[in-house]
Amino acid sequence: MFDESHLRSNHMATQPTIRFAAIGLNHFHIYGQTNLLLRAGAELVKFYAPEPDLVALYAKDYPQAQLASSEAEILEDESIHLVISAAIPSERAPLGIRAMQHGKDYMSDKPGFTTLEQMAEVRRVQKETGRIYSIDYSERLETKASTKAAELVQSGAIGRVIQMVGLGPHRPRLHQRPPWFFKREKYGGILCDIASHQMDQFLFYTGTKQAEIVHAQVANYAHPEHPELEDFGDLVVRGEGCTGYIRVDWFTPDGLATWGDGRTILLGTEGYIELRKYIDIAGRPGTNHLFLVDKEKTEYIDCSDADLPYGRNLIHDIIHRTETAMPQEHCFYASELALKAQQLATRLGNLA
Amino acid sequence: MFDESHLRSNHMATQPTIRFAAIGLNHFHIYGQTNLLLRAGAELVKFYAPEPDLVALYAKDYPQAQLASSEAEILEDESIHLVISAAIPSERAPLGIRAMQHGKDYMSDKPGFTTLEQMAEVRRVQKETGRIYSIDYSERLETKASTKAAELVQSGAIGRVIQMVGLGPHRPRLHQRPPWFFKREKYGGILCDIASHQMDQFLFYTGTKQAEIVHAQVANYAHPEHPELEDFGDLVVRGEGCTGYIRVDWFTPDGLATWGDGRTILLGTEGYIELRKYIDIAGRPGTNHLFLVDKEKTEYIDCSDADLPYGRNLIHDIIHRTETAMPQEHCFYASELALKAQQLATRLGNLA
Repeated sequence: MFDESHLRSNHMATQPTIRFAAIGLNHFHIYGQTNLLLRAGAELVKFYAPEPDLVALYAKDYPQAQLASSEAEILEDESIHLVISAAIPSERAPLGIRAMQHGKDYMSDKPGFTTLEQMAEVRRVQKETGRIYSIDYSERLETKASTKAAELVQSGAIGRVIQMVGLGPHRPRLHQRPPWFFKREKYGGILCDIASHQMDQFLFYTGTKQAEIVHAQVANYAHPEHPELEDFGDLVVRGEGCTGYIRVDWFTPDGLATWGDGRTILLGTEGYIELRKYIDIAGRPGTNHLFLVDKEKTEYIDCSDADLPYGRNLIHDIIHRTETAMPQEHCFYASELALKAQQLATRLGNLA
Repeated sequence: MFDESHLRSNHMATQPTIRFAAIGLNHFHIYGQTNLLLRAGAELVKFYAPEPDLVALYAKDYPQAQLASSEAEILEDESIHLVISAAIPSERAPLGIRAMQHGKDYMSDKPGFTTLEQMAEVRRVQKETGRIYSIDYSERLETKASTKAAELVQSGAIGRVIQMVGLGPHRPRLHQRPPWFFKREKYGGILCDIASHQMDQFLFYTGTKQAEIVHAQVANYAHPEHPELEDFGDLVVRGEGCTGYIRVDWFTPDGLATWGDGRTILLGTEGYIELRKYIDIAGRPGTNHLFLVDKEKTEYIDCSDADLPYGRNLIHDIIHRTETAMPQEHCFYASELALKAQQLATRLGNLA
């Protein structure tokens, strides 16, 4: 299915690269997905979305991309290797299935699924077609502090990771949100939507292959005017010799200089790491702050030199049919656990 | 039962004060308990402990205190209003009961109980005698950042508090610990022992009067040589329109400049507060760091001027039979929830 004649040479790295197209621009994360591929040398060739306003914005940023007349035009273009999407969440898995069935690899914004049924179908088609169904868990894959934390954990800097706390507060910007943002069926619930990020991190940093959800709850505490909005959620996940606590919310106040004070705290048997990914409140400027406390010292580590290999590795995987960017099962399992938590969650506040 | 002829005038504040005695010096927290009362003008008159080494240490710091020949000598001394104790945890409630039955008020180090049965008996005797059974939840009552946070929350600075994350890591210092530290029956389990602090904070900052434990687990992850030591524990508590996550552990690494990187994060509908109570890792020097993010700003607040009213208020309560330091029911309920979590907790790692 993979026609090597379409591989393009990346003039920067003089390595073969791939051609990709975007379908579905409903979340602005599509810009992050596009940019990480361009940065790694991939070639953006086409895009499609049914919304003229979203098309116009994307076209302005990427004049090199040709507006396709339909989704089908992209899916049937045999020169395209990868389809990326930040469509309305509930439409991402069906699109991914169509892409894989047309021989394309696929990279979705998170969440990559909104129901366990979608996930089962994606798993089936992925296995059948041998295509890649990747999810851009950007809070790890595209933050340099996360890469640095991975190096430290892998080097044994904090011993064995026994627990992770992941806090994912988000700015609501409700007046700027499209209607689908407020429809439970469309976005899948807050644990599905946001917590798959932290679940990806939990599986990645602890290395556990099996885990269960032992607690989950979601709430609408302060938005009765949006009855399907879940403005808070948390969960406890238990893996092999490790546990995790994940909390997500839509309460970032306007006085914060960025969209959210995302934190990851990795507790090891020999030390701990705290990531302040997007801001160090009333502290150091910039992003990607890593704090390491081990047996000898307490240290701030500047992560500005850290690598962001996801795009490069995904291109490698597409060309060589490997799993270096992220094992396929890891990609699925992180989302599966988030979906299970969502399904199990006790409903509080205005949801009760 | 309260003989006013024994009230002493506090020469600093020219207000009447009280006479107190210490029984049980097994945890060094007794020094904090003693000092907070002395600072507020109370008079330390006697002390007793069966261990000569602990007696010698205490005598050196407090030459004004007379070593009693027995516990009974203190309990039968009608001039003493308050007994304080940091005895072995499992002995604190029985001592408190004896103290109350002798007409004394009582202040225990935390944990103030090691079983729900002890608590039921203390509740009964407290009601019967009308004495005060206070617990020095020092991670709130004796940290200035907590006082400042209370002022901010009460002023509505972050709206309604909907969630609290409380992290209570502790340095193990296992080679310096007495045998009782390793006996589950003596210390009561890690959620009982440490998490009552965070539970006190949860009840205090959210204002909830009813709560339930919806998740709890304890582990021995890294100390198989101490089979009854719980080196990790966490829980989720759900109150009225609010929830809390509490994590405690004995994994503070030696490279940290203090005993533990205690954090409290209060998430409100209009902002959030983070307390870094004992250290701001690789950040500002000193203790009691408060960070406020609200609708207008992100702010660091110096808490060095904040009040620590617990001792002063407790003396007031002893003299005037009020509940200004801490409502009696709050004191009990925080511990009750911690004990319930301990009882419900799934046992992991080397405990499984």
